[in-house]
Amino acid sequence: MPSRYLNFRCSVPWLILFLETLFLIRFFFCFPDVGNIYSPSSFYPEFQDVNHMVIFGFGFFLMVLRRYGFSSTGLNFLLIVLGVQCSVLVEDLLVFLRVQESEGGMKSLAKAVVSMTAVAISTGAVLGKANPVQLIVMSLVELIIFYVSRCINRTFLQVPDSLTLMHVHLFGAYFGVAVTSRFPEPPPGLDKNRSTPKSDLFSMLGTVFVWVFWPSFNSILADSKKEAVLNTYFALAVSAVTAFMLSALTSKDGKFRMTHIHSAVLAGGVTISYTAHSIQHPWIAMILGLLGGVITILGSHCLQRCFNPAFKLQDTSGVHFTFGLPAVLGAVAAVVLCVVEKGISTQWNNLSSLGYLVFVDVGAFCQTISTALITGLITGLILNIKLLKTVHVSKYFDDQFYWEFPHLSVGF
Amino acid sequence: MPSRYLNFRCSVPWLILFLETLFLIRFFFCFPDVGNIYSPSSFYPEFQDVNHMVIFGFGFFLMVLRRYGFSSTGLNFLLIVLGVQCSVLVEDLLVFLRVQESEGGMKSLAKAVVSMTAVAISTGAVLGKANPVQLIVMSLVELIIFYVSRCINRTFLQVPDSLTLMHVHLFGAYFGVAVTSRFPEPPPGLDKNRSTPKSDLFSMLGTVFVWVFWPSFNSILADSKKEAVLNTYFALAVSAVTAFMLSALTSKDGKFRMTHIHSAVLAGGVTISYTAHSIQHPWIAMILGLLGGVITILGSHCLQRCFNPAFKLQDTSGVHFTFGLPAVLGAVAAVVLCVVEKGISTQWNNLSSLGYLVFVDVGAFCQTISTALITGLITGLILNIKLLKTVHVSKYFDDQFYWEFPHLSVGF
Amino acid sequence: MPSRYLNFRCSVPWLILFLETLFLIRFFFCFPDVGNIYSPSSFYPEFQDVNHMVIFGFGFFLMVLRRYGFSSTGLNFLLIVLGVQCSVLVEDLLVFLRVQESEGGMKSLAKAVVSMTAVAISTGAVLGKANPVQLIVMSLVELIIFYVSRCINRTFLQVPDSLTLMHVHLFGAYFGVAVTSRFPEPPPGLDKNRSTPKSDLFSMLGTVFVWVFWPSFNSILADSKKEAVLNTYFALAVSAVTAFMLSALTSKDGKFRMTHIHSAVLAGGVTISYTAHSIQHPWIAMILGLLGGVITILGSHCLQRCFNPAFKLQDTSGVHFTFGLPAVLGAVAAVVLCVVEKGISTQWNNLSSLGYLVFVDVGAFCQTISTALITGLITGLILNIKLLKTVHVSKYFDDQFYWEFPHLSVGF
Repeated sequence: MPSRYLNFRCSVPWLILFLETLFLIRFFFCFPDVGNIYSPSSFYPEFQDVNHMVIFGFGFFLMVLRRYGFSSTGLNFLLIVLGVQCSVLVEDLLVFLRVQESEGGMKSLAKAVVSMTAVAISTGAVLGKANPVQLIVMSLVELIIFYVSRCINRTFLQVPDSLTLMHVHLFGAYFGVAVTSRFPEPPPGLDKNRSTPKSDLFSMLGTVFVWVFWPSFNSILADSKKEAVLNTYFALAVSAVTAFMLSALTSKDGKFRMTHIHSAVLAGGVTISYTAHSIQHPWIAMILGLLGGVITILGSHCLQRCFNPAFKLQDTSGVHFTFGLPAVLGAVAAVVLCVVEKGISTQWNNLSSLGYLVFVDVGAFCQTISTALITGLITGLILNIKLLKTVHVSKYFDDQFYWEFPHLSVGF
Repeated sequence: MPSRYLNFRCSVPWLILFLETLFLIRFFFCFPDVGNIYSPSSFYPEFQDVNHMVIFGFGFFLMVLRRYGFSSTGLNFLLIVLGVQCSVLVEDLLVFLRVQESEGGMKSLAKAVVSMTAVAISTGAVLGKANPVQLIVMSLVELIIFYVSRCINRTFLQVPDSLTLMHVHLFGAYFGVAVTSRFPEPPPGLDKNRSTPKSDLFSMLGTVFVWVFWPSFNSILADSKKEAVLNTYFALAVSAVTAFMLSALTSKDGKFRMTHIHSAVLAGGVTISYTAHSIQHPWIAMILGLLGGVITILGSHCLQRCFNPAFKLQDTSGVHFTFGLPAVLGAVAAVVLCVVEKGISTQWNNLSSLGYLVFVDVGAFCQTISTALITGLITGLILNIKLLKTVHVSKYFDDQFYWEFPHLSVGF
Repeated sequence: MPSRYLNFRCSVPWLILFLETLFLIRFFFCFPDVGNIYSPSSFYPEFQDVNHMVIFGFGFFLMVLRRYGFSSTGLNFLLIVLGVQCSVLVEDLLVFLRVQESEGGMKSLAKAVVSMTAVAISTGAVLGKANPVQLIVMSLVELIIFYVSRCINRTFLQVPDSLTLMHVHLFGAYFGVAVTSRFPEPPPGLDKNRSTPKSDLFSMLGTVFVWVFWPSFNSILADSKKEAVLNTYFALAVSAVTAFMLSALTSKDGKFRMTHIHSAVLAGGVTISYTAHSIQHPWIAMILGLLGGVITILGSHCLQRCFNPAFKLQDTSGVHFTFGLPAVLGAVAAVVLCVVEKGISTQWNNLSSLGYLVFVDVGAFCQTISTALITGLITGLILNIKLLKTVHVSKYFDDQFYWEFPHLSVGF
């Protein structure tokens, strides 16, 4: 049916061209000259790490489907580079509206790349089900809503800017889950949504990259970098150990399962993201990593058996339990740790101030997750209108609807 | 025909041994003691990035042929490590001849690694057609001529040293094209010069590495690092977006084509390389990235349909349009930007000084490209003499003439 | 035989849980608060490099067996994250016992990661033959003994701390060889211990990573970083060149052999590890790299033909010649260089002081190697008791005894 696919030619390139023109015009009028901005040079290696992690790491992390390797890396790459430009401009617009102070240059770029993690995570939820047009629309909508959600947290709840950015996993995961719930389920006989040893190996490669660079991710915007790095490292190490332990314990015959390792290995980094800069004792970080690993593996069993069939949603690469649940745990842990610390330092006298602290943290958490779910559902509905040419379920999870395979034809 | 391949044993190792002995003797007499050299420690991460990009990134970037994976990475590795030593010594010789000031240590090594990009690019043009002996001879000749060409630019045209190094893409691409034009064409029925999904995936892996590390490459020798990094990042982002856009627009059915992505994604980095440190407005960098992407994809269609058949040359991994055309564009853009900037600042009064500027820049460009083409042709002719045991066209693009495959035999 | 594999479920997870609990308790009581520790921020990029090299690089470097890819990367990852925690605590215990001064935080973590190289190397020797329980026990025992051996060197022989850590290759290789000699040999007809082009390519990927990050590895704890980086780079470059040269010279038909490249490419880094910080002339580093490459390739032929069959040991990924022999060479070279340097500076007058120097260096070397061999043999005997459920020789080198393959079954 070539006629079906000709229409991508009429949508994808023009959509991209339209966006790029928009960005260029905005950059022409808005972005500060590079000469005016300050960025410490020692900041660069961490930025490079995060950039590498988001583009390379997540690109290969998502390569879990046997016939979807090109799209996993390729489209992730496209969404990131589009989103980073959009993100820099949204931030710039907020500066223009006096909602936020200008930071300029490298730091603005670093925040943009960190924000893109939300898009990379959401992409994982609809992996193989959304076509490029849907993905581009989704990522831009998500990015803008994430900025708005951060703005609310910062303005009304006085959450520090670097902490609002750490809601990125929570937002990305629940936005993705809400969007994917609006997509029709693939038929049960379809076997293209399985992995092969080869795709698992590439995915392992990406996972190890994400794992190694996670301390840079958590510390790039933190005030106290060395604490953030050490705590994140220990949390990641313990969650990796937990992943292997629980994988052997819950699977048949005590064997390891690759999908468990993929997801639970990263849980520690997600769980610790809110508190990495403020934890003073490494054993707390380690316990958070342990709990993160546990909740991911148990969650993967519960969600796949009970939750997903009940809600008829299919979360292709399991972002709900990989990023969503550990982020919820991390948010709860941040509240508890903050209360205990403040409580001890004031000898539990100033209970009203404690109550306010709890209110702010829980408020920011509830606002983020509910915004993610509601706007995710709406986005999911919008994405499935006819105009965006939804993919038929029988064509899910297949590279060859988006990529030319020259190896099959004669040409170069 | 074992007798044919025994002769590699009599050439490759002895050639390498001869070169290595030469390097050792030169190092014994010439290279400054490491204690005497200054190198700021903050310089190290960028050096590491560039080193990683050239050895790992280009090695896997070149892995586009289905049966040539070992040679793509392995021989690229060999050429880089040989070339870096040669390069350090050539620089040392120039210092000895008072053509250049000594810089020593880390910086000298960094320049050597950056220069090796020319060799990695040229290797891409003759990929699968040249045997190891030919490759080694080619890379050493190219390296020395590149140093001479830089010397001419620096001495007679007063081009700053860090800018002469940025001609590396231009020189590498046109030298490679000229060399490959002297190799006989492969027979039309040969299907070993195709890619497979697996080789494309590895090549994508390498491309992403090169993309991520490109800002380090453009900024490593620049005076104003943060401008160079930011401009390069934006140019790369826009060229990646353009790559996807034009790929969907020019291919059948609006699908993406992997070879387009591979090449056009990097075009922004090449185009911006001359001007990354001096552009003050990011939108200019973005427009350069856009033009770079456009010229690469349109170039890939024109060159493969008209130019290459007319000149009977086969540019295996398409270095002409991946690196050559964007570099030409970048050189032209550098002249235009320089003239506009100087013209505005002097209110177009001092036209003779402007003319001199144009003369110098255009002169450096013409000198580099003509040196590359002429010496490339001569090198191509030399490489095809009988002594160097040219590979028969039926044996092009095949690993098994250079690598033992223990998996097929019984041993180890 | 499902009953056989159920018992892994009763051992692996509980062993890991026990260890993790132990670590947590120890961390609770012992590890200094992260706020109290000093770590220069410029130290972070090197730490990141070494971390990346050990987890990613060695994980893929070990992927030489055709059916053992998951275990190579996965179990290497598990051992590293377990070992790093153990290592930090052992160091902490030594500080508590006043054997060593506290260094805290990042530096302690960096040393822990560097020490894990010994485990990664030993794992290479028993690759595919030991089950996860055996590997965990082996790595913890090895780590503790390595710390004890370092303590002896530091306390009784007054070797500087950063130098004792450089015995890591020597210790890891000979410990691994001694352990593997206690495992029964695989039957001669088994073909699972071969590599395929795909596994070789992944292994090449890991090798290039290890190669690129080696200068960071050798310089991370050195006093004079720039010397260490430059000398290591030159040594690595020359050993890479030597690897290609000797591979073509010793193999049939003058072809390159991938296993030669894998091992000899790294020989320079191992050989130079003792002396990288103190060599003043790069040509000495280059000669050491050359000798390292030569000894590795000649060693690989001699050991595989004469030594291994005679002792009935099978060193799966050839750690004896990849890390063991170059480390011996490096230790000898360190003594010679030290004597020559001191001899020249004192004009060979103070021979008794020279004798003392030689005694210390040779003593540290002999102590390390004999401790590694003896404790390795004992560990090998312990690992092969029935309790640890040794793998039957017919089940060597196979992923599917440790990993679930969901692609073969129906589930997610």
